[in-house]
Amino acid sequence: MELLAEHQCFDGAVHYYRHPSKACDAPMRFGIYLPPQASQGPLPVLYYLAGLTCTEETFLIKGGAQRLAAELGIILVAPDTSPRDTGIAGEDTDWDFGSGAGFYLDASEAPWAQHYRMYSYVTAELPALLAEHFPVDPQRHSIFGHSMGGHGALVCALKNPDRYRSVSAFAPIGAPMQSPWGEKAFSGYLGADRASWRAWDASELVREHQLASPILIDQGTADKFLHAQLKPELFEAACRESGQRLELRLQPGYDHSYYFISSFMAEHLRFHAAYLKA
Amino acid sequence: MELLAEHQCFDGAVHYYRHPSKACDAPMRFGIYLPPQASQGPLPVLYYLAGLTCTEETFLIKGGAQRLAAELGIILVAPDTSPRDTGIAGEDTDWDFGSGAGFYLDASEAPWAQHYRMYSYVTAELPALLAEHFPVDPQRHSIFGHSMGGHGALVCALKNPDRYRSVSAFAPIGAPMQSPWGEKAFSGYLGADRASWRAWDASELVREHQLASPILIDQGTADKFLHAQLKPELFEAACRESGQRLELRLQPGYDHSYYFISSFMAEHLRFHAAYLKA
Repeated sequence: MELLAEHQCFDGAVHYYRHPSKACDAPMRFGIYLPPQASQGPLPVLYYLAGLTCTEETFLIKGGAQRLAAELGIILVAPDTSPRDTGIAGEDTDWDFGSGAGFYLDASEAPWAQHYRMYSYVTAELPALLAEHFPVDPQRHSIFGHSMGGHGALVCALKNPDRYRSVSAFAPIGAPMQSPWGEKAFSGYLGADRASWRAWDASELVREHQLASPILIDQGTADKFLHAQLKPELFEAACRESGQRLELRLQPGYDHSYYFISSFMAEHLRFHAAYLKA
Repeated sequence: MELLAEHQCFDGAVHYYRHPSKACDAPMRFGIYLPPQASQGPLPVLYYLAGLTCTEETFLIKGGAQRLAAELGIILVAPDTSPRDTGIAGEDTDWDFGSGAGFYLDASEAPWAQHYRMYSYVTAELPALLAEHFPVDPQRHSIFGHSMGGHGALVCALKNPDRYRSVSAFAPIGAPMQSPWGEKAFSGYLGADRASWRAWDASELVREHQLASPILIDQGTADKFLHAQLKPELFEAACRESGQRLELRLQPGYDHSYYFISSFMAEHLRFHAAYLKA
């Protein structure tokens, strides 16, 4: 692991690392916030998955989460949104596919299947790496995210009901099989067989697995992607049908930006803290 | 005034504007945060002057100030760090001179004197514009900033002891006449006569004007610019000699970034609120 940068912050520290990833067969980057309590023993970990075009820095620069994480004693972890510079042709062509748009799934379609395995990276390789290098409590993990990453957090939690204590999302893609972003990504990463897509769509997964904790989602009503891409009502309907508890809060006037996310960050941290510190 | 963008944030709103500036004879941009109380009448205003290479967005994206400004009922105003696209040759050549590096002074040297008049813009034109368009209380203004902008805030306050109720700074340039950044900027904007520079150096100004309120400065000890550029000990000595009250706090391990600034943002807002709401 190579330490790229280190910044003291709220009496703790933000670190950025690059390391060779086996899951992605490529170097990966992540950011971590270690609160001041990190010197005193194992702490709970809250993963944040960012949205399209973002990097491992976005959340730690714009999210405004470190203040409360320092108070609550929670480690924050923010992976990059995809592998980069893998050499795959066209990787950087589109802003909503390839680099910066890994969708937190394991690609099955060539040429993406070799490197674009963000699900395995986020749910298995990265937690193991953290356990090796940082004072993390392996029994206390939660996950949240934004947009593509909000959906990614839902998928990670729903596929691993025992691994994450809680999950929340800001403006997640609610049903990628019914969104242009999702259809483009799934076609490219998973191929033409839509049946195989269901394993990576939160609105499908929630019909098969339910979580013990309620899911928290905040969605701005002035979000320009709300009706064409995000469609939280589809995820809400799937939760209702399957019996999954969901608190979907429509926040009047808020858009898709970090001005929105930061406004509700403290409530999400306190939501997760209730499960992480129970 | 042209509204460029608007984002709901902590129950208030961040707006970005572009408008023709008379002081700068050029279009200027600024950001403003209107807390929820703005609908109920005149509010105090806190100006933030950003550092080299920053824009009107930097503070409102990275500073983490809106949460507490919403709670305290304070309007935040963040001007750009210089005019841009004025057509002056070489304006964009250096990161520490010209665009992004206006130094919050009124240039006297051609060709800069026509446009680079950030002091008049920040202390006179912008407040008048705000009074026309927003529910600001003209009697309750304070100012703070970072690095070049921390020094700019000190200069604005020291040259106008009755206009600003309080001033604070994160890692300000303490004595620009004795810093490479300052010498380069003053040579270019003010010419070779160093005597004329004294009107724009906070460590010189504080010998002539003192403020009723104490000045608050936070400075990280791991700031890579501390010894070569910032030299807070020179400003501290000038304050001591002139009788200006100063609280200079050296913060162990902190660097020059917004990870540092955001860590102490709440304390600066509460410091200003005590004077703005007295």
